[in-house]
Amino acid sequence: STTRKRMYALAVVPGDGIGPEVTDCALGVLDKAQELFGFSTERELIQAGAQHYLATGELFAGAIEESLRGKDAILFGSMGDPSVTPGILERGFILAMRQAFEQAVNLRPVRLYPGVKTPIADLSPERCDMVFVRENTEGAYVGRGSTVHAGTKNAVAVQESVNTRAGVERVIDYAFRLADSRRKKLTLCHKTNILVEAGKLWTETMADMAKRYPEVETDYVHVDAMCFHLPVSPERFDVVVTDNLFGDIITDLGAVIQGGMGVAASANLNLDGSAPSMFEAIHGSAPDIAGKGLANPAGAVLSLAMCLAHLGEIEAAHAVETAVVHVLGSMEGLAGPEMGGTTSEVGERITAALSGVAA
Amino acid sequence: STTRKRMYALAVVPGDGIGPEVTDCALGVLDKAQELFGFSTERELIQAGAQHYLATGELFAGAIEESLRGKDAILFGSMGDPSVTPGILERGFILAMRQAFEQAVNLRPVRLYPGVKTPIADLSPERCDMVFVRENTEGAYVGRGSTVHAGTKNAVAVQESVNTRAGVERVIDYAFRLADSRRKKLTLCHKTNILVEAGKLWTETMADMAKRYPEVETDYVHVDAMCFHLPVSPERFDVVVTDNLFGDIITDLGAVIQGGMGVAASANLNLDGSAPSMFEAIHGSAPDIAGKGLANPAGAVLSLAMCLAHLGEIEAAHAVETAVVHVLGSMEGLAGPEMGGTTSEVGERITAALSGVAA
Ligand SMILES: CC(C)[C@H](C(=O)O)[C@@H](O)C(=O)O
Ligand SMILES: CC(C)[C@H](C(=O)O)[C@@H](O)C(=O)O
Repeated sequence: STTRKRMYALAVVPGDGIGPEVTDCALGVLDKAQELFGFSTERELIQAGAQHYLATGELFAGAIEESLRGKDAILFGSMGDPSVTPGILERGFILAMRQAFEQAVNLRPVRLYPGVKTPIADLSPERCDMVFVRENTEGAYVGRGSTVHAGTKNAVAVQESVNTRAGVERVIDYAFRLADSRRKKLTLCHKTNILVEAGKLWTETMADMAKRYPEVETDYVHVDAMCFHLPVSPERFDVVVTDNLFGDIITDLGAVIQGGMGVAASANLNLDGSAPSMFEAIHGSAPDIAGKGLANPAGAVLSLAMCLAHLGEIEAAHAVETAVVHVLGSMEGLAGPEMGGTTSEVGERITAALSGVAA
Repeated sequence: STTRKRMYALAVVPGDGIGPEVTDCALGVLDKAQELFGFSTERELIQAGAQHYLATGELFAGAIEESLRGKDAILFGSMGDPSVTPGILERGFILAMRQAFEQAVNLRPVRLYPGVKTPIADLSPERCDMVFVRENTEGAYVGRGSTVHAGTKNAVAVQESVNTRAGVERVIDYAFRLADSRRKKLTLCHKTNILVEAGKLWTETMADMAKRYPEVETDYVHVDAMCFHLPVSPERFDVVVTDNLFGDIITDLGAVIQGGMGVAASANLNLDGSAPSMFEAIHGSAPDIAGKGLANPAGAVLSLAMCLAHLGEIEAAHAVETAVVHVLGSMEGLAGPEMGGTTSEVGERITAALSGVAA
């Protein structure tokens, strides 16, 4: 009963390692979702990543940036290979994209789905359902710093974290809105007792924004204490907002708790529609298992669900998530032979489950 | 058969909350250790912490610093109370002491003792025995930063991490020596792909020092990946060296894995003998359970063992650790009623076990 077009321009960036395999699964699920929910996509395949960089020298800026910019969303596989010096692709592609497309929020749901094995003893799904909202464009990720007397015994390396009111405010505002739509609890995670200047800005902004969301209860947890509480009492948390570096660290711990990299999804969100958002499983390219059918495509398919929700295809998004949850619940293990099928077989099982869910 | 004096001047700083209770236990164990191993201590009780600060305004600098400086070591309880603004005691006492006494290394053994309950499923003691070597005087803890347009929508807060070759080198050198005395494996933990300037200094220093310790195998793990590997494959690590902030974060995760704050010990080591080292359980002051006999004194007693090792009383140090391990192995839980006794009863049990060990 909607009159909007429901045709979306997607960029698909399979990348390196297991990226292409899991992206294939996500695209198979997307085909089925389109059929079932009556929307369509126009997809442009973008070659990028380690092999592409080694062959062409091309990273993000230039032709790739231009191709991506016009799209409604970006489906991303993964990037990285031992043949490329660490840092090159991270900074030259991932960070460059986050900056150029103002992907201000890195969204990381941490949910333990029924039947998924977690390394945390006695953890049940009811106790583990939260979302991390990570600032994604500034802080320690600005790449500012300098070294004097480099290479000598007197070397001093200074690394800066730059935090702007605008950058902090937009991510905290997003987190409040999200909290308001969920259990109405927002936790700020930082290290304000030591990082005094940055800490003050985060604390003050949090307090200012709280006035606009009187129904959301707020609290504060130091990043070290977060590592302590997260594994043993995840039920303490619903929405957690944090800076770029702390977010990078604690969301990996979140992934452990929810059963491993294979099931963890993420979104890099542009909040004002000025450029596309990007969706990716949080696992890396895992070159050691690439091409062997051992990778779990669940994280990639759950990232597709986040993409569909972002595009406004809410029903399809829920159905895809539900289909993944069904299949995860029937797996023995989350990766490798215990998965009970190859990457593409698991993908096909999710696609089949989706038909069941939609029926 | 040694002719050295074996009389040590100790400062005892019980501090706040559960600090005094667990320190009492440690001192009871120390009494017994002296009797059994034939050394002696001269102890000065130092009043410091939240109550003392509120009553006198005194933090570290001044009289307390002078009292502490002449000692061979400092036994520390814990500090902190909700009545004192967060940051005051941390910066005014803990950080000030680490700086003034050049306690360059924060040493954190992470060992799962037999019989201790860990929240990590299927983790066995053989798989969890490592030591974190955290830089303790610089990095993001230098308290450098500034804010322009504070309190306005244009505010920009810059926080600096300052890393010196001398500071990085001394902690890496210590870590290599420790690794050489253990399983000969040293892991650097950082985020070199993003924190480029600091990362280069740490990487270069690590490579330079590695030449002096050809028998020690080295590797590198990003701090986010560390959070991922630590809970599920702690056996990958033996000695881990890292910067001040990353160390703060990942050692709390280490404490979770080894069974909780109640059993985690630490040392703040001065490496050149120019000032005393400090030994403390890593739990906080836990004001909610203070005075109730619910705190586990194991962390404090294990910190005493580290202190004894530092003073050269190696036999006594081993015996104290062994006594704690015996008692931990016979506990039901690590804190509260399941501990099977009050704080002081558990302390007495450790003291009794020590006699057995030495016999
Ligand atoms: C690849 C790397 C630059 C990235 C980061 O550090 O942000 C990754 O760890 C992530 O969390 O998305
Ligand atoms: C109390 C605080 C300043 C301290 C730190 O951040 O270093 C604590 O968390 C620690 O790890 O010893």
